[in-house]
Amino acid sequence: MDLPDLRVAPDPADPRLTRRVSGRDQTGAVVETSVTVERPLTLYLNGQEIVTMMTILDRPEDLAVGYLLNQGMLRTDDQLTAVEYDDDLGVVVVRTERRTSFEEKLKKKTLTSGCAQGTAFGDLMEGFAEVKLDPEARLRTSELYRLLHRINTVPSLYLEAGAIHGCALAEGDRPLCYMEDVGRHNAVDKIAGWMFREGVRGSVFYTTGRLTSEMVIKTVRMDIPILVSRSGFTAWGVELAREANLTLIGRCKGKRFTVLAGEERLIWDAELSYLEEESAKHWRKNAREE
Amino acid sequence: MDLPDLRVAPDPADPRLTRRVSGRDQTGAVVETSVTVERPLTLYLNGQEIVTMMTILDRPEDLAVGYLLNQGMLRTDDQLTAVEYDDDLGVVVVRTERRTSFEEKLKKKTLTSGCAQGTAFGDLMEGFAEVKLDPEARLRTSELYRLLHRINTVPSLYLEAGAIHGCALAEGDRPLCYMEDVGRHNAVDKIAGWMFREGVRGSVFYTTGRLTSEMVIKTVRMDIPILVSRSGFTAWGVELAREANLTLIGRCKGKRFTVLAGEERLIWDAELSYLEEESAKHWRKNAREE
Repeated sequence: MDLPDLRVAPDPADPRLTRRVSGRDQTGAVVETSVTVERPLTLYLNGQEIVTMMTILDRPEDLAVGYLLNQGMLRTDDQLTAVEYDDDLGVVVVRTERRTSFEEKLKKKTLTSGCAQGTAFGDLMEGFAEVKLDPEARLRTSELYRLLHRINTVPSLYLEAGAIHGCALAEGDRPLCYMEDVGRHNAVDKIAGWMFREGVRGSVFYTTGRLTSEMVIKTVRMDIPILVSRSGFTAWGVELAREANLTLIGRCKGKRFTVLAGEERLIWDAELSYLEEESAKHWRKNAREE
Repeated sequence: MDLPDLRVAPDPADPRLTRRVSGRDQTGAVVETSVTVERPLTLYLNGQEIVTMMTILDRPEDLAVGYLLNQGMLRTDDQLTAVEYDDDLGVVVVRTERRTSFEEKLKKKTLTSGCAQGTAFGDLMEGFAEVKLDPEARLRTSELYRLLHRINTVPSLYLEAGAIHGCALAEGDRPLCYMEDVGRHNAVDKIAGWMFREGVRGSVFYTTGRLTSEMVIKTVRMDIPILVSRSGFTAWGVELAREANLTLIGRCKGKRFTVLAGEERLIWDAELSYLEEESAKHWRKNAREE
């Protein structure tokens, strides 16, 4: 499939990202399979060691910048003077014009939504209230379905080796950037970092992960007005989305979805022909114009 | 289904765990649905504030103890003198006979496997090398299938509201304890805490989550010799499992699975009648005795 606007996508053929291992299957037969490789990456900001994270290490610079942005350690008006990755040491160094020091921030962590990165509570909400998401942005359901289809056909490590989470930034039905990693939050942070370094914006953020409070807050801070996931919601995620007027679309499976916030951005234009996924014998047509 | 050994299971009817919200579906029709509620829980150990985590708050004491154990802040030979949960404050206080202080530990975090809890690198591996998992433990594939079936029929929040991860401790094909939470690591830590407080052991740990390095290390530290997941593997998880001789079974779907470590504990006794999941028209019989 030709996706001319897709500037970044995973390279499942990159030999560093997967490894072949043998084992047995359910019949007891010996099998060989691919598994995803995760490596440690230590991040320094202006000489201060911040964290070591496990990642598939395909986009260390984007991950470093995105992590710092989403943790509130880097500000959107900061000038980056250096982003240097040393492959031998597994280290990435970020430098800014502004002097930084995070003794207090690093001490006190909040594990948000379980699947956590120890973001300090105050910092998580910082920047959230100030963002005014574009109220004029629109997404047609026909565009949503086209986007989901395009995302699902991007070659990915998921198809190759599993155990991977993917995210994508899009403008309407056009994917711009697709990132993956073992950790969902790494994939999100990589896109945030890429957007910042490239100066790119988008109207839709897609994730395979759940629409938790942390996911909603990050999307709002990235100034993206529409968030889409095939997974489900949490109550606080819904509440925050409504507060920020983020369009929150979850449980996307086939043509089904539920939107629990920011519904006014959606235009229900798609003609819906329902396939019963369990049996090809039944067809139900349902067309609706709005 | 009668599961007499199942001592703890979620209570999806507990009104505090879900909330009803309205939105729209793919046809534009107004719908009402249940979403999972996560709340903050602040954990203190011997007067020191450790972390605030988001959780469904159904088992705060188990979560607190399990978190501390899995972070290496509580040792298996520690005497707990108090585990007190204050619902109004959203605080749980754990006290031990031994004096503790974690200034250094709290400062330096490693985000393991992306989906992280900021476990310090050294602590993660602490206790890992000393554990000698039971080499005599066995699991028949017929027991594995029965266990998976039983786990899948336990009433759960997942079925009610989605966006939930579940884990179970079992003895062979008998589930003993089933815990859920918004965060996968919370669910694992809850079981670890429950096992410690109740003095219960088990031979099999089941998770819906991926078999990352962190998941493998936690299972080994919990002294459980067999780890099962419907999700996939990472290379380092496989490597650590082989090092610790943990039986590592992943990608369990229907009757399919792949075992990549500790295969000698498995006994392939199940008769396999394959259903083609897409169409009921094709049947293939495959029986194997070992």
